[in-house]
Amino acid sequence: MPTEGGFREKCGVVGVFGHPEAANLVYLGLCALQHRGQEAAGIVSSDGQVLVSHRGLGLVTDIFPEAIIRRLRGQAAIGHNRYSTTGGSQHLKNAQPLVVEYGRGGLAVAHNGNLVNAERLRAELEARGSIFQSTVDTEVIIHLIAAATADTLEDRVVEALQQVRGAYSLVFLAPDKLIAVRDPHGFRPLVLGRVKGAWVVASETCALDLVDAEYEREIEPGEMVVMTDEGLSSYHPLAKAPGAKCIFEYIYFARPDSTIYGRSVYQARKELGRTLAREAPVAADIVIPVPDSGVPAAIGYAEAAGLPFEMGLIRNHYVGRTFIEPRDAIRHFGVKVKLNAQRNVLEGKRVIVVDDSIVRGTTSRKIVKMIRDAGAVEVHLRISSPPTTNPCYYGIDTPNRAELIASSHDVEEIRRYITADSLAYLSEEGMYAFLGGEQAGFCDACFTGRYPVPFEDTGTPRQLVLFEAQDER
Amino acid sequence: MPTEGGFREKCGVVGVFGHPEAANLVYLGLCALQHRGQEAAGIVSSDGQVLVSHRGLGLVTDIFPEAIIRRLRGQAAIGHNRYSTTGGSQHLKNAQPLVVEYGRGGLAVAHNGNLVNAERLRAELEARGSIFQSTVDTEVIIHLIAAATADTLEDRVVEALQQVRGAYSLVFLAPDKLIAVRDPHGFRPLVLGRVKGAWVVASETCALDLVDAEYEREIEPGEMVVMTDEGLSSYHPLAKAPGAKCIFEYIYFARPDSTIYGRSVYQARKELGRTLAREAPVAADIVIPVPDSGVPAAIGYAEAAGLPFEMGLIRNHYVGRTFIEPRDAIRHFGVKVKLNAQRNVLEGKRVIVVDDSIVRGTTSRKIVKMIRDAGAVEVHLRISSPPTTNPCYYGIDTPNRAELIASSHDVEEIRRYITADSLAYLSEEGMYAFLGGEQAGFCDACFTGRYPVPFEDTGTPRQLVLFEAQDER
Amino acid sequence: MPTEGGFREKCGVVGVFGHPEAANLVYLGLCALQHRGQEAAGIVSSDGQVLVSHRGLGLVTDIFPEAIIRRLRGQAAIGHNRYSTTGGSQHLKNAQPLVVEYGRGGLAVAHNGNLVNAERLRAELEARGSIFQSTVDTEVIIHLIAAATADTLEDRVVEALQQVRGAYSLVFLAPDKLIAVRDPHGFRPLVLGRVKGAWVVASETCALDLVDAEYEREIEPGEMVVMTDEGLSSYHPLAKAPGAKCIFEYIYFARPDSTIYGRSVYQARKELGRTLAREAPVAADIVIPVPDSGVPAAIGYAEAAGLPFEMGLIRNHYVGRTFIEPRDAIRHFGVKVKLNAQRNVLEGKRVIVVDDSIVRGTTSRKIVKMIRDAGAVEVHLRISSPPTTNPCYYGIDTPNRAELIASSHDVEEIRRYITADSLAYLSEEGMYAFLGGEQAGFCDACFTGRYPVPFEDTGTPRQLVLFEAQDER
Amino acid sequence: MPTEGGFREKCGVVGVFGHPEAANLVYLGLCALQHRGQEAAGIVSSDGQVLVSHRGLGLVTDIFPEAIIRRLRGQAAIGHNRYSTTGGSQHLKNAQPLVVEYGRGGLAVAHNGNLVNAERLRAELEARGSIFQSTVDTEVIIHLIAAATADTLEDRVVEALQQVRGAYSLVFLAPDKLIAVRDPHGFRPLVLGRVKGAWVVASETCALDLVDAEYEREIEPGEMVVMTDEGLSSYHPLAKAPGAKCIFEYIYFARPDSTIYGRSVYQARKELGRTLAREAPVAADIVIPVPDSGVPAAIGYAEAAGLPFEMGLIRNHYVGRTFIEPRDAIRHFGVKVKLNAQRNVLEGKRVIVVDDSIVRGTTSRKIVKMIRDAGAVEVHLRISSPPTTNPCYYGIDTPNRAELIASSHDVEEIRRYITADSLAYLSEEGMYAFLGGEQAGFCDACFTGRYPVPFEDTGTPRQLVLFEAQDER
Repeated sequence: MPTEGGFREKCGVVGVFGHPEAANLVYLGLCALQHRGQEAAGIVSSDGQVLVSHRGLGLVTDIFPEAIIRRLRGQAAIGHNRYSTTGGSQHLKNAQPLVVEYGRGGLAVAHNGNLVNAERLRAELEARGSIFQSTVDTEVIIHLIAAATADTLEDRVVEALQQVRGAYSLVFLAPDKLIAVRDPHGFRPLVLGRVKGAWVVASETCALDLVDAEYEREIEPGEMVVMTDEGLSSYHPLAKAPGAKCIFEYIYFARPDSTIYGRSVYQARKELGRTLAREAPVAADIVIPVPDSGVPAAIGYAEAAGLPFEMGLIRNHYVGRTFIEPRDAIRHFGVKVKLNAQRNVLEGKRVIVVDDSIVRGTTSRKIVKMIRDAGAVEVHLRISSPPTTNPCYYGIDTPNRAELIASSHDVEEIRRYITADSLAYLSEEGMYAFLGGEQAGFCDACFTGRYPVPFEDTGTPRQLVLFEAQDER
Repeated sequence: MPTEGGFREKCGVVGVFGHPEAANLVYLGLCALQHRGQEAAGIVSSDGQVLVSHRGLGLVTDIFPEAIIRRLRGQAAIGHNRYSTTGGSQHLKNAQPLVVEYGRGGLAVAHNGNLVNAERLRAELEARGSIFQSTVDTEVIIHLIAAATADTLEDRVVEALQQVRGAYSLVFLAPDKLIAVRDPHGFRPLVLGRVKGAWVVASETCALDLVDAEYEREIEPGEMVVMTDEGLSSYHPLAKAPGAKCIFEYIYFARPDSTIYGRSVYQARKELGRTLAREAPVAADIVIPVPDSGVPAAIGYAEAAGLPFEMGLIRNHYVGRTFIEPRDAIRHFGVKVKLNAQRNVLEGKRVIVVDDSIVRGTTSRKIVKMIRDAGAVEVHLRISSPPTTNPCYYGIDTPNRAELIASSHDVEEIRRYITADSLAYLSEEGMYAFLGGEQAGFCDACFTGRYPVPFEDTGTPRQLVLFEAQDER
Repeated sequence: MPTEGGFREKCGVVGVFGHPEAANLVYLGLCALQHRGQEAAGIVSSDGQVLVSHRGLGLVTDIFPEAIIRRLRGQAAIGHNRYSTTGGSQHLKNAQPLVVEYGRGGLAVAHNGNLVNAERLRAELEARGSIFQSTVDTEVIIHLIAAATADTLEDRVVEALQQVRGAYSLVFLAPDKLIAVRDPHGFRPLVLGRVKGAWVVASETCALDLVDAEYEREIEPGEMVVMTDEGLSSYHPLAKAPGAKCIFEYIYFARPDSTIYGRSVYQARKELGRTLAREAPVAADIVIPVPDSGVPAAIGYAEAAGLPFEMGLIRNHYVGRTFIEPRDAIRHFGVKVKLNAQRNVLEGKRVIVVDDSIVRGTTSRKIVKMIRDAGAVEVHLRISSPPTTNPCYYGIDTPNRAELIASSHDVEEIRRYITADSLAYLSEEGMYAFLGGEQAGFCDACFTGRYPVPFEDTGTPRQLVLFEAQDER
Repeated sequence: MPTEGGFREKCGVVGVFGHPEAANLVYLGLCALQHRGQEAAGIVSSDGQVLVSHRGLGLVTDIFPEAIIRRLRGQAAIGHNRYSTTGGSQHLKNAQPLVVEYGRGGLAVAHNGNLVNAERLRAELEARGSIFQSTVDTEVIIHLIAAATADTLEDRVVEALQQVRGAYSLVFLAPDKLIAVRDPHGFRPLVLGRVKGAWVVASETCALDLVDAEYEREIEPGEMVVMTDEGLSSYHPLAKAPGAKCIFEYIYFARPDSTIYGRSVYQARKELGRTLAREAPVAADIVIPVPDSGVPAAIGYAEAAGLPFEMGLIRNHYVGRTFIEPRDAIRHFGVKVKLNAQRNVLEGKRVIVVDDSIVRGTTSRKIVKMIRDAGAVEVHLRISSPPTTNPCYYGIDTPNRAELIASSHDVEEIRRYITADSLAYLSEEGMYAFLGGEQAGFCDACFTGRYPVPFEDTGTPRQLVLFEAQDER
């Protein structure tokens, strides 16, 4: 699923405590997690006394030149990549980590996830006189902490989190400590690693790999880990809740070289491909992936089907945010700037195309047509997940229900729309095959509509009454 | 007093209500008030529904290109020029108007003056959970309004102002109204004007002149003026207090073409010069000003003394913020980049130099030496105000007491330091001569140490615990 | 060969004539050719009367926002991507297309290749009074044209090119015509395509694909193609010469989905991999590529060897120009920021790694170690080309001879240095197998030292006597 | 004459040789000469081996931060302020010093003046193959030098200058020498000074003053001064010509504190004012200048007339390049942003206003109306020069003849247009009174139409065929 309009991960977070170049490690961790958010990034560091922050719009390597990294001094730091939801995505003040100076000193927070009762809490806080600086749900947590009555930061954080509901993998930084918390359902991943006596937390293990950190374990659902000069302590201060780990991390979001919830994403995807080959075989000459995310599943499919694996679509990796299209439109333009179909591979062939999901269907339709234009005699699309029928409220930026083609069309209708010779999705059971069929503890609401936590807020974002003249179009 | 290190006005404010190009008028008003602050400027406008803001560092004409002005739409707007105190002057987030979105909607405020109990109030607010975005005293007022219990904005503003003490000329903007308030002492000026059915408030009348507005009257000490679509209403909700209008506005701060507290600044300065000539005559050939601020007083002095007025010092007006000096230093460099002494005017002459004040004495010393280097045979310095012996706590950025040369040296000691042949200050009585000798209602604490309102705060600015990596050196 | 320090293509060129949005097509063509140069890019367009140009440093999509594209008006345009040689790579004035206004009007040129007698010609031109604006060899051609005596631009171009020697695929733009020329040896590729009545020339066919242009044919070695409103004319005005098409385009430079010299690059690479498997088999469990360039050869190798193909190394595609490494260095840092070795794929396996070439050996050494660190029990490196022993003088930015590890070490020495269990290169004959063994017409000097055209210049670049203060470090 | 639309000086030049911080002194010299050009500035320095250059658009202090100054290393440097003529004023490549690398090494040149046969020479050079980089006449000189046959730089410069005609005060910088030349007519000023063993050349003495340099003498018309490590040599290699020093430098262009052609500008202007008072007296109450340029003449007028001198117009010095005017226009807007008329000074008064010249008449008309609006009962305009009836071809950017109101209207007609109660110009004889009536050696073509050197070029600027996409509107 290589193109715009699909599901998009909202954020990646990293934290490092106890390393003389903490901000530099966080920076590298954010580079490794760049796929989780490319709109904005930020780092806040602490030298034990003061916090230093820097945030910007764009890619991590553009936002942080060496001079900035050097100023982010101290042995502790946290960072955040943002892939914002609608409404204010381009506003720097919505970038994270959020950082404030409140009565008890400085505090920064980076958040992956989404709260389902943030609007109500914000309204209550504002009624008491609190003034918000951004429109992100995360700021509610900061204000709850500032208004909390407990004495220690740990207790204030717990006091605040007992009031919020939804998905959160959080990393806090105060001048003298770093706190990492994962919500009791465990919606979003968060792992713990170790490098030369320092601690690292990150959304995925690929961030640990880049900084030479050893993977220790996942932060558990409902766990709060506190790092100070005294060492690391673990608490479970929040009420237990049913597990709801995001299954889509395996299917699309996570980097293939990450280990998520204790398992290799690459091997999971290959297994999804193998299962798909068994569930939905078809006579064909070659198997090709929609690169890059479809590659492991296609290798698995080809292997199980005993067919040759080929790179029939070549991806252009030097792709900026936008491409300027001539008014005299080019066929399949939106797809073609990222993918080129190879005539010499596809011509005269019966082709199986493996992709991870279909969102609106428009991209799949362009890909199928492009492959056929390049000479394929048959095009069979195989999707390594069930039909995506419902939006996500837990931190993934998805289209609303009406835009999801599978919410209102059956497989045959979708096949006709995308003009494939055949189309097959993985079954719900097949999706869990690589887990030994064990479905408990996962959230698959986007496929099933079974939401583990109800969404309380109105869903209509707050009407902004302040604008920066520069941001307006 | 043309060079760095002197007294510096802290701010200028402007507001316009009821004009289709409100932001454009505010922009021009800020241009006219540029002398009151050159570090930062901002404008917030309202179209009746939402506020649009833009702030920047530098000069007004650089901060506001036409495209920005056009986006600041609506019939109401307020603006602010900043000449910040130490500690954070270069931080954009300390620029004004401050603008927030709180529980009751959007609110912006521009402030000229200085509160004397802001630190204590901030500590109390933070203890209750308020989170501040800046380090400026003005933000305390915003938080007090957000936490106020009254229903209307007017009442909330009054509730907030009843808690603050010190100097303030304030302009507030909400989506549907503009409120201007001057503190009960009337420390800083604030005038009301009218243009084509719209209302204008500004720190000085020169801002009215530029936008073709008719001068109506001063906003009175303790008065609150509220402008809505229904018209303008005036209230006096704050307890009465002894008048304390800043006398230094006449001597140096205000533009000569402004009318302050009902009198022409230019004529006041000429009269100060005339009085000075009568109080401290000396045999000489020519009278020269230290341009530009000393020009009117020098014209008055020359006229009263019957001596020729000459421009013996030429000012270089294309002067940026900083000049790069060679390591191999240039004589009188700091003064020379702004002033050049004309040998052909000064050579062989007995010269009377008229300036408005002496702060540290270092600049005066350089000027005297420069004039003598240019061939003057005698240099007599005449100051059109009494010795400045005390710092200001009401909104002027002055050196602390120890740096004011007149706080620890008598006139003869100062004369020797600055190497003048003679030195004379205007007497305290002489300073009030142009007012018919009436001293009541003015603050002259910088000359006399008689402070109308005690300074409650510690004076040591809050220790910052947050920094932007980009701002650090 | 995914990392720094290797062979780097110097340039890509594009030209469009007769299309209402010529600059937009050129822009897209440059996007498709971004792999041929990422340091700078430029476009010059013509509306029949005047030339409009824009050049910048960085990636094409960053240099050309839509507003710029819209200003590059007209029905003809040429463009250039630059990957400069040492000495001035970061100077914008060395970016292309070079564009001048000379006695006959405006002229722009984009050049892929390298001249071998530019220094001598430049010295002669300067002795006559010519003043150069850049340090690139291409400017010599411009001055030769300006000084030529012939009347038509075509004849002046021929007069100029008869004096230069070396590699050049050139695209010229005058207000009323576009001229494309390929040197008589045909060192660098250049293809001709057609879209809706307009002509397109480009370094590779992938540029034609993106703009929906039909591939017509290669521009032949020694051919000059002239496009005007009258149509396209072809000439062969230059003396014939032995063919010397760059074989390395197949091995590494070109995009796999391009057709070069009439053959699919992807199929060529797969065949190189198959041949390599036959020439250098080894007992192993899996075959993995060094992505992305090694993928097709690895697929071919795995297929021929009957072994599973796996993505044992995952590439991070969000990679900026530079990464900031902590002082406390990270193992294999230079490689790790681009590649991550997957333990779950490699652990306990005998691994065949397929790459396209070895330059200095340092990168290969890091890759081998990284794979072994991830648990591989054996690491066998297979290179899909012969040892690279000699630098290129025809437009590729290569290290000098001393830095090429294969110029001074035999295969066993290299194997020990890179710590592989076995190492094998493709044979010279094997490299030509996919061409049916036909070696005539190709340049393989980097493998064999058989240079088709001697290098006349001193090789020491001109000593610069002018610097921009801003460019210095 | 404070506002737009008047005569504007084209350039200022500075050169320093033999000082360890040469570029820093040049930078300060350019600051002192900022009034001679505010559109662009540049500095080129030499460390004996290489030239380093930096140019930019805007004011000197904005273009040259300290880091840039430090990179402009070496003991010699030249600089230039530009106030360009129409056609390309905003193009950085037309900024000076022009700097090239030609066959003999690096060479930079800064030019104040204008050539009258540049177009013809350029055409000849281009016909021979020369390629120009800019559209400024100065580049012709560079190409003539590059094409010259003599051996030494001095001889090549002479060979080039023997071919050009018109006005030039030139400063050249080669790695090892600095050459200053003034054209045989001496149109534009150029002075020589000395500081601590180093030599300084500059357009005006105010630049010498700022860097503590002693004024030595003028560079004579037709003189060439060469500075090397061996010392300073003077030559007169060019054919003698009648003197044609610009009289307008005294009236308006030069800074009042400069000494031009051996006389004080300030004293000259006062004398012009005195003469004017004698030639054109009128019964009045006060004399006011149009600041700043009219101040000395007004002081002289007031003194001779025995009337009080007042600052009835206050100038706003914080004035950017442009002001944004509301669509609902403000009276006298163009003048009011720079000048404010003081009612308290002018009301009920008969006012004599002294200005230096009238160009189009529009500004004078606005000033007269503004003074009358402020309450003056009579407004008498006195101009301290004769009517300006003709454009300048020697380096001043003037309106063409049709736009000069005095070219087609007599004094009474002009008076009626500007709505003054009376209007008087200084007589031609009166203009020379301060020189003892000696008119020989001066150029007063703008008043008399007696052009000392005929203008050969067509006057229609070269049709550009190249544009930068970024520069277009």
